[in-house]
Amino acid sequence: MTSPAKFKKDKEIIAEYDTQVKEIRAQLTEQMKCLDQQCELRVQLLQDLQDFFRKKAEIEMDYSRNLEKLAERFLAKTCSTKDQQFKKDQNVLSPVNCWNLLLNQVKRESRDHTTLSDIYLNNIIPRFVQVSEDSGRLFKKSKEVGQQLQDDLMKVLNELYSVMKTYHMYNADSISAQSKLKEAEKQEEKQIGKSVKQEDRQTPRSPDSTANVRIEEKHVRRSSVKKIEKMKEKRQAKYTENKLKAIKARNEYLLALEATNASVFKYYIHDLSDLIDQCCDLGYHASLNRALRTFLSAELNLEQSKHEGLDAIENAVENLDATSDKQRLMEMYNNVFCPPMKFEFQPHMGDMASQLCAQQPVQSELLQRCQQLQSRLSTLKIENEEVKKTMEATLQTIQDIVTVEDFDVSDCFQYSNSMESVKSTVSETFMSKPSIAKRRANQQETEQFYFTVRECYGF
Amino acid sequence: MTSPAKFKKDKEIIAEYDTQVKEIRAQLTEQMKCLDQQCELRVQLLQDLQDFFRKKAEIEMDYSRNLEKLAERFLAKTCSTKDQQFKKDQNVLSPVNCWNLLLNQVKRESRDHTTLSDIYLNNIIPRFVQVSEDSGRLFKKSKEVGQQLQDDLMKVLNELYSVMKTYHMYNADSISAQSKLKEAEKQEEKQIGKSVKQEDRQTPRSPDSTANVRIEEKHVRRSSVKKIEKMKEKRQAKYTENKLKAIKARNEYLLALEATNASVFKYYIHDLSDLIDQCCDLGYHASLNRALRTFLSAELNLEQSKHEGLDAIENAVENLDATSDKQRLMEMYNNVFCPPMKFEFQPHMGDMASQLCAQQPVQSELLQRCQQLQSRLSTLKIENEEVKKTMEATLQTIQDIVTVEDFDVSDCFQYSNSMESVKSTVSETFMSKPSIAKRRANQQETEQFYFTVRECYGF
Repeated sequence: MTSPAKFKKDKEIIAEYDTQVKEIRAQLTEQMKCLDQQCELRVQLLQDLQDFFRKKAEIEMDYSRNLEKLAERFLAKTCSTKDQQFKKDQNVLSPVNCWNLLLNQVKRESRDHTTLSDIYLNNIIPRFVQVSEDSGRLFKKSKEVGQQLQDDLMKVLNELYSVMKTYHMYNADSISAQSKLKEAEKQEEKQIGKSVKQEDRQTPRSPDSTANVRIEEKHVRRSSVKKIEKMKEKRQAKYTENKLKAIKARNEYLLALEATNASVFKYYIHDLSDLIDQCCDLGYHASLNRALRTFLSAELNLEQSKHEGLDAIENAVENLDATSDKQRLMEMYNNVFCPPMKFEFQPHMGDMASQLCAQQPVQSELLQRCQQLQSRLSTLKIENEEVKKTMEATLQTIQDIVTVEDFDVSDCFQYSNSMESVKSTVSETFMSKPSIAKRRANQQETEQFYFTVRECYGF
Repeated sequence: MTSPAKFKKDKEIIAEYDTQVKEIRAQLTEQMKCLDQQCELRVQLLQDLQDFFRKKAEIEMDYSRNLEKLAERFLAKTCSTKDQQFKKDQNVLSPVNCWNLLLNQVKRESRDHTTLSDIYLNNIIPRFVQVSEDSGRLFKKSKEVGQQLQDDLMKVLNELYSVMKTYHMYNADSISAQSKLKEAEKQEEKQIGKSVKQEDRQTPRSPDSTANVRIEEKHVRRSSVKKIEKMKEKRQAKYTENKLKAIKARNEYLLALEATNASVFKYYIHDLSDLIDQCCDLGYHASLNRALRTFLSAELNLEQSKHEGLDAIENAVENLDATSDKQRLMEMYNNVFCPPMKFEFQPHMGDMASQLCAQQPVQSELLQRCQQLQSRLSTLKIENEEVKKTMEATLQTIQDIVTVEDFDVSDCFQYSNSMESVKSTVSETFMSKPSIAKRRANQQETEQFYFTVRECYGF
């Protein structure tokens, strides 16, 4: 036997194994805790989603009702007007058409937000309730499966422990049997050695006097040797038996070691992964996906509906047209705007001449008058051309002012990162711009000029 | 002179003209009333638009605040959690990412609706105020211009009246002068006829006795003829003068008639049209157009911003993935999920053999055991394949159930014309559908089967 310091003692090996198993057991507990935590988080998330959509459904319903009230307020006003036909007539005018479409749009949006609210309450929230139920049920089952897997793993570790202890026991027995056998062999050697010495010592004595003693001694010695041999044989058998047991125990230990490592590997690499799969999936992601896609579908349909309405308004805005409105107005009030009959010549007391008389003596006077008028006309024509040009230019200036494309508000929707800066940016947009004030002053000045020119020349 | 029944009397002509002028005057008044009415309607429309956008700004602000509160409620919850790091860790999980984007979207929409409200108040409403001011000012001026034009027209009509009356007067004078002249001519003829008769009668008398009488008579007759001739000449001159006056008056009347008809035509065809143009346009349509385009720009920018947010959510929903979440979870809790050290062979008391001993006498026993295990293994392999197939099919069934594309809610946004039918249509969408209940029952049954198979075969 070499020094005991060279091998680990049984106690040390057992203690090390215990530590290793304890660590694994702690890990298994942590794994279950981790899955529990994930499950809790999921339950919480699904609860939050339900609360979120319930509250948002309320907000959408509120918004929808406010929009409806807004539309009704103005539509009721239109309906309550005394002269229904009159209001109906006005609808052909392009600004009134825009206004009606604006009210329609509000009604449409009101309806769409009611639908949205309804989809939240009757489709999306029930989905989250289902996902919550499903994933709770699945988690419970998966946890049972996981517990079973962990129990199985612990069983394997316990088995390895007992197999290892059996190996230790049998190996100890084998070592002990071996040492006993070695002791017997030593005694045998000692006994054999004693016999040889005595025979050597007896050789110088007389043969007759020592013969009896020698036979007696020989008998004693022979029985002792036999006894030792018997013992040695017994110990040899015991050792052989124990040695075999120890080999078998070691084989069992080695096989259990392989099996345990394989089980540990299977648990950590496959089972744990499957477990998380079951906890995390089997519908959780897919059902969440469907619930959120329902939300997206609802939002995108709302968007499309709103966009259709805006397209209609845009179309009406493009058709804002003063000329056709004038035409419609004049057709509507035809009796007010139609020119009267021409004034006819009324002959006095059967006066037969209904034509201008241009003979002498009025001829020369008429001719003179005609020449005067022609000269006045050509002066006026020149003046007229000038004034017309001025007026057209002035009108164009006004048109340019009132048709400037200042309606793009994209900038207002480009926020900087800070939320605080939004308000100030937006409020600047229209009225407070110096250019607008200047433009308005310019517009009124030009307008004034237009009317002055008009008045002076009696157009 | 022919029968008076053949011509209209002066009074008749004047009455007819009066009627015609009265009708025109009434039309002119109606025209002003019509323009007044259009102006009132416009003022009302612009007032309605201002009220509408003021109220809508309130609604949008309200909606924005509610959305903000909703987002803050859940964001505050996230922030108040004890373990900040823990929460931060969870953000890598795909469902948590979806949830965060959902909250972001609500914040974004809140911000956008505040912007919308601000644009209504600080850009669109001021525009309507301006349009209202501009069109009120323009209308006032246009009305003045119109009044002037109508006054001018009435002046022309009054002139025609007086010219016509002058023609009547002069023509009457001319007729009267003509009849007086004719009377004088008749008298002259009568006088001449008388002289000839007397001379014829005097011829059979004695020449001396009748000579003095004849001379005296001749003297008287001659003076009478002269008187008549003188009167005739006077009347001829009067008639010629009056005739010329009448011709001139008729000429004036005919010219005034032309001028009046031209003025009436100009007023009804050009001036009225210009007047409506000025009232209706000079910026009204163009400014309304710009105000409504500002509204459209705001709405479309809001739509685009919302859509960007929805795109981000859609992307996150597409990335909902159980496998990568599992990976992230295992990385996050690496110490909990990492496999333990391999169990190593622990030799007992310096046992040198660390390999399976497969010599006699354990060899045959090991061989037998190996054969038994191999036979058991092949049985298990066949069984395993079967179970695996069943499980895979079952899992596929569950997957099919949980990934069915049932999230399109377009139908909910296709309304029939009646508003009443919306609610009932929408409420049917999800939970109350029999197919859904059936599918859920099927899902749970399949799930149960999956776990039973798993348990039986110890997977």
